[in-house]
Amino acid sequence: MSYPRSVQKLIELLSQFPTIGERTAARLIFFLLKKPKKETQDLIQALSDLQKVKQCPSCFNFFEPEKDKELCNICSDSKRNQKVLCVVEKEPDLLSIERMGRYKGLYFIIGGTLSSFNKKKKRIRDKELKKKIKDNSEIKEIIIALNPTTEGKATITYLEKELKPFKRKITKLAKGLPAGGELEYADEETLLSAFKGRN
Amino acid sequence: MSYPRSVQKLIELLSQFPTIGERTAARLIFFLLKKPKKETQDLIQALSDLQKVKQCPSCFNFFEPEKDKELCNICSDSKRNQKVLCVVEKEPDLLSIERMGRYKGLYFIIGGTLSSFNKKKKRIRDKELKKKIKDNSEIKEIIIALNPTTEGKATITYLEKELKPFKRKITKLAKGLPAGGELEYADEETLLSAFKGRN
Repeated sequence: MSYPRSVQKLIELLSQFPTIGERTAARLIFFLLKKPKKETQDLIQALSDLQKVKQCPSCFNFFEPEKDKELCNICSDSKRNQKVLCVVEKEPDLLSIERMGRYKGLYFIIGGTLSSFNKKKKRIRDKELKKKIKDNSEIKEIIIALNPTTEGKATITYLEKELKPFKRKITKLAKGLPAGGELEYADEETLLSAFKGRN
Repeated sequence: MSYPRSVQKLIELLSQFPTIGERTAARLIFFLLKKPKKETQDLIQALSDLQKVKQCPSCFNFFEPEKDKELCNICSDSKRNQKVLCVVEKEPDLLSIERMGRYKGLYFIIGGTLSSFNKKKKRIRDKELKKKIKDNSEIKEIIIALNPTTEGKATITYLEKELKPFKRKITKLAKGLPAGGELEYADEETLLSAFKGRN
């Protein structure tokens, strides 16, 4: 005895996703089965549409190409500042910066962080980044906008070393108190950064 | 600026599922986008196959009908003991009992539990259960196999009261130490149940 064959198959596929185990997968499927059939059809349609999405060969962000455009909207926008390249870890980080609405340069999604213990454990796009910088002499500043976590900091250190030979300006995001943050609850490192960077 | 339209649409659909928020949905989608296209196609196929699944009108379990069979494999199996009806909360509970391999009676999925504070907050199939018992004079024993949690116990009490007028034997699962459990770590209620039910 097991679940119906199609339920079993879907559990198998879904439990390969991060954070989803077999029990969660079953729970999601039964949730869907109790909804009107229309909702399953909507999901199928959305997944079919997802197949149109491509990865930009220049920044590695995902985009829906219009008229067989090669590059994403940002990389192909000549009005953006071609002199600044912002290196982020992942797609949602790029979106956060775009939503801020003040950065007008280009991006590069490095695709992960190095483990601080094993620098080569996780594959990041360091080779692709170096090629992009080498090929684009226009780029004057590289902003390494990675998270100030242990793994992020290890990656920042690694990238700084790797990018040094290109002789471009390398900057990192300021550390300090977050908006609405309270001194009373700030950790020592954050507070020290806030003091050092005072202006 | 937001994610590509098809990504945004899928985030919207996925974040309606339990335990999935917008950030998790985005994470799942980018995970999928980084896999070969074949995996998206497999998901689409599995979801299409899922549409074949029906709900059994007798026990409310989900099944894949063969040759337009009305009832699920268990309800339509005349070799199963028609005198015993086991009431469970949800599909995975039924599967656990079937996997035990010793219960040969019928099932009824009640579909949830009552909140111990608000008895009617969550819709359970109490009316359908009463109809099934009323229509099947063959049923001699009803096993209420709900979880011994606060909500489960509230539901057991409620069902016992509701089913009393039908004058069938009503039983509940034994409580006691789980296999491999240790007295040292057992809570008082479990230990008391183990003492009371000693044999």
